[in-house]
Amino acid sequence: MTRSITRGDLEALDRADSLRDFRDRFAIPEGVIYLDGNSLGALPRETSERVRKVIEDQWGRDLIRSWNAHGWIDLQQRIGAKIGRLIGAGEGETVVADSTSVNLYKMLAAALELRPGRRVIVSETSNFPTDLYIAQGLLRQLGCAHTLQLAAPEDVEAAITDDVAVVMLTHVNYRTGRMYDMQRMTERAHAHGAIMLWDLSHSAGAVPVDLSGANADLAVGCGYKYLNGGPGAPAYLYVARRHQSRISPALSGWLGHESPFAFERSYRPANGIERFIVGAPPILGLTALEVGVDLMLEAPMSAVRAKSLQLTELFDALVTQEIGAEILALVSPREPEMRGSQLCYAHESGWPIMRALIDRGVIGDFRAPDILRFGFTPLYLSYLDVWNAVATLEAILTERAWDKPRYHERALVT
Amino acid sequence: MTRSITRGDLEALDRADSLRDFRDRFAIPEGVIYLDGNSLGALPRETSERVRKVIEDQWGRDLIRSWNAHGWIDLQQRIGAKIGRLIGAGEGETVVADSTSVNLYKMLAAALELRPGRRVIVSETSNFPTDLYIAQGLLRQLGCAHTLQLAAPEDVEAAITDDVAVVMLTHVNYRTGRMYDMQRMTERAHAHGAIMLWDLSHSAGAVPVDLSGANADLAVGCGYKYLNGGPGAPAYLYVARRHQSRISPALSGWLGHESPFAFERSYRPANGIERFIVGAPPILGLTALEVGVDLMLEAPMSAVRAKSLQLTELFDALVTQEIGAEILALVSPREPEMRGSQLCYAHESGWPIMRALIDRGVIGDFRAPDILRFGFTPLYLSYLDVWNAVATLEAILTERAWDKPRYHERALVT
Repeated sequence: MTRSITRGDLEALDRADSLRDFRDRFAIPEGVIYLDGNSLGALPRETSERVRKVIEDQWGRDLIRSWNAHGWIDLQQRIGAKIGRLIGAGEGETVVADSTSVNLYKMLAAALELRPGRRVIVSETSNFPTDLYIAQGLLRQLGCAHTLQLAAPEDVEAAITDDVAVVMLTHVNYRTGRMYDMQRMTERAHAHGAIMLWDLSHSAGAVPVDLSGANADLAVGCGYKYLNGGPGAPAYLYVARRHQSRISPALSGWLGHESPFAFERSYRPANGIERFIVGAPPILGLTALEVGVDLMLEAPMSAVRAKSLQLTELFDALVTQEIGAEILALVSPREPEMRGSQLCYAHESGWPIMRALIDRGVIGDFRAPDILRFGFTPLYLSYLDVWNAVATLEAILTERAWDKPRYHERALVT
Repeated sequence: MTRSITRGDLEALDRADSLRDFRDRFAIPEGVIYLDGNSLGALPRETSERVRKVIEDQWGRDLIRSWNAHGWIDLQQRIGAKIGRLIGAGEGETVVADSTSVNLYKMLAAALELRPGRRVIVSETSNFPTDLYIAQGLLRQLGCAHTLQLAAPEDVEAAITDDVAVVMLTHVNYRTGRMYDMQRMTERAHAHGAIMLWDLSHSAGAVPVDLSGANADLAVGCGYKYLNGGPGAPAYLYVARRHQSRISPALSGWLGHESPFAFERSYRPANGIERFIVGAPPILGLTALEVGVDLMLEAPMSAVRAKSLQLTELFDALVTQEIGAEILALVSPREPEMRGSQLCYAHESGWPIMRALIDRGVIGDFRAPDILRFGFTPLYLSYLDVWNAVATLEAILTERAWDKPRYHERALVT
C-alpha cells in the first residue's frame, strides 16, 4: 500500500456499492457488526411474515389439503432447483433434504455404489469433522473392506490413485477459508476414475460455484450459512444427471419412491433427483430457506464475489495497518483467489478476545485451539462495518480489554 | 344398542367432556370437521406467535448467540424428554431428530449391531411402506447376508424365531388402525433373543404407550400427526438405556459426537441418547413441535384414550345406525382395545366419496385401493362433530353426491 486506508475511503466504497440496498432486506440488530454469517446467516426481513402465512393460512386453514393446494409436496424440488442456479447445477440435479450430515451419508454411499471395485475414500485432515465422522460411520456399517485416507490439503492430489472410489472435500475450509480449485481437483479425481464429492457448505452464496463446468459428480451443502435459511435450515444435495439412475439410495424412504402414495410394498426409486428425498419435507424450515435463497438469487454472484474480495482484502489490510500482522497472524491463504468469504487469524488468547469483541457488538466466532474467524457476507455488510470492526479489535488488543475473567469462561457452543 | 343414538346424546357428552376446553387452543377453521389429525395434526393457536418470537427475537436479534442464550443446542433433548413422558420412556431415552424414515434407518442399523450373528428382520406386510423401504435400503447396503421377512399381522408372532435379529412393527397400523399388544409382542421378540423396534407414528398422543413397562428396546415416531408439531415436523427416537452405549451410530454426525465443538478428527459417540443426533437441529420445526407436545402433556392420557374410544365407538355405531354396515364395511378391528384412534371403512367408490366429504368440510383421507380413513383427535374434536360427520357422509351416500366427474380426478397427494 502506498498510503494509509482511511475511514473516508470505506465510506466512498459504500456510496458506490451496487449491493448496498440489500442490507435493508435483513434485520441486522442496531449496534451489531455481524461477521458470523458463515456460521448462521442473518434474518431476512421477509422471513417472519412468510413463515406466519404458511403456519396460519396454509397449515392452520387448509390443513392436510395444503400438500396439494400450496405445493408443499414439491417444495424440496422447487427450492433445490433455485439453489442449483447458485451452484451451477443443471435442471433436476439438486434437491433440498435432511441435514448436510445425512446428505453426506447418502452421497458417500452413492459414490461407493458407483465405484464398486474400489475401497478407498480420500479426504482431508482438516475437513469439517462431520464429513469425516459420517465417512467413519458408513465404513463401519460396510465392514472392514473400505478405508478412509486423510491427507493434508497440499497432499490430497497425490493421494488420489487408481484404487480411490471417492474424493470427498469441502470446497471452502470451515476454519481457514482455504478454497480448492474445483475444476482442477475434479479433473484429478476423474483422471484416476474416482468420484468427486464436494461439500459446498461454505461456498454456496459466498463464492461462484460451477458444478456443471467442473463436471462434478456429487455435492452437498448447508442452508443456514450464506443462504440465510435460518437455524438448522434443511440442507441440499446435488447428483449429476448421468449418475442418478445408477444409484440405489441407501436411505430409501417413501418420499423418494417413484409413487409414494401408491403405498407399494417394495421400494422403487423415483426417476430423477427425487429419489434422494427420504421423509416428509420440513415445511417451516423450507419456507424460511426459500426466502434466503430468493434473496441471494437477486444479487449477481459476480458482484457478491467482487465485494467479498474487497471486504476481506480491506479487513486484512486494516489489520496490518492498525494492529500489525505480527500480533494477529493470518491463517487464511494470503492469495484472495484461494479464499472463500472469510478470514482467520491465530492468537493465543483467541477465545477471550472473541468474547470481548462480541461484547462490543462485533460478532465473529472462535475455532479451537486459537482461531478468530470472521465471515464476510456482502449482502448485509458495509465497508464501514469493516473499518469499525477492525477499530474495535484494535482497541480491545491495545487496552487488553479481553483480559477479564468473564471472557475466559467457556460457553457450550463456540 | 337398545335405542337409537340421538344428537342430544352427543350434545350431552360434549357438556360433560373434561377435555372440551382444549378445542379452543387449536385453530380449527370454521365449517371444518377435521378427521385427519392422524395425517397432519391441527395448528395450536400458540404456535404462530412462538415461532415468530424465535425468528425475530432469537435468530434475528441474538443471531449466533442464540445457540447458548436460548438453549437451541439442547432443544432436541428437551423436547425429546417431553415426548418420552408421552410414551413411557425413562429419562435420557428419547431425543428429537431428523425424520421418522431416517430414524428408522438408525434404529434398524442399531438393532442389527446389537444382534450381530443374526440375519433376519421380521416385519409386517401391511406396515407403513417407508418402514419396509428403509429396511430394504439398509439391507442392500449391507450386502446379501440379511433378509427382510414379511408376515401378515396374525402371522408375525409365528415368524419370530431364534435367527431373527429384530422385529420391526408399527404399533398402530396407518391404514386399518389395528394396534398390537406392545407388551406381548415385545416379550415374544425377547423370548427369541430378538430386538423389538416400534414405530409409534400413529400412537404417541393417540393411545397410552408404556415403553418402559413393555421393556421395549428401540422406537421411532412422527411429530406431525397426533403431536400437532406441524407439517414435516422433526421426528423422535427412543433407545432403552441398557442398549445405548453398545451402539455405534450408523449416521455418526458431529452433533452426536461427545464433544462436537472440539472439532476432533475421529468420531467418539456422545455418552447417552445424544449420540443419535446427527446434524444441526431444525430450530423452527422444533419450536412448533414443542408447542404441540406441551399441549398434549397438559391432557391426561387416560382421558384422551377414554374420549378417543367413545368418539370412535359412537362414530361406528352411527355409521351402522344411519348408513348401514353393509354399505360401509369396517376394516378396522371391531374390538376397541385392538384399535388406535382411527376408523377405516372400505367402499369401492372410496376416493370420490372422500372428495365429496372434504368438499362439505368433513376432512378425512383416502388410502388406496378403497379405504376411507378417519382419525379421531380428542383434543380438538367434539362429540357433535361425530354426529355431523356421519350425517354428512350419510347425505352424500344417499344423494350419490360423490358421483360427479370432479370428484373422480386424482390429486397428487391423497
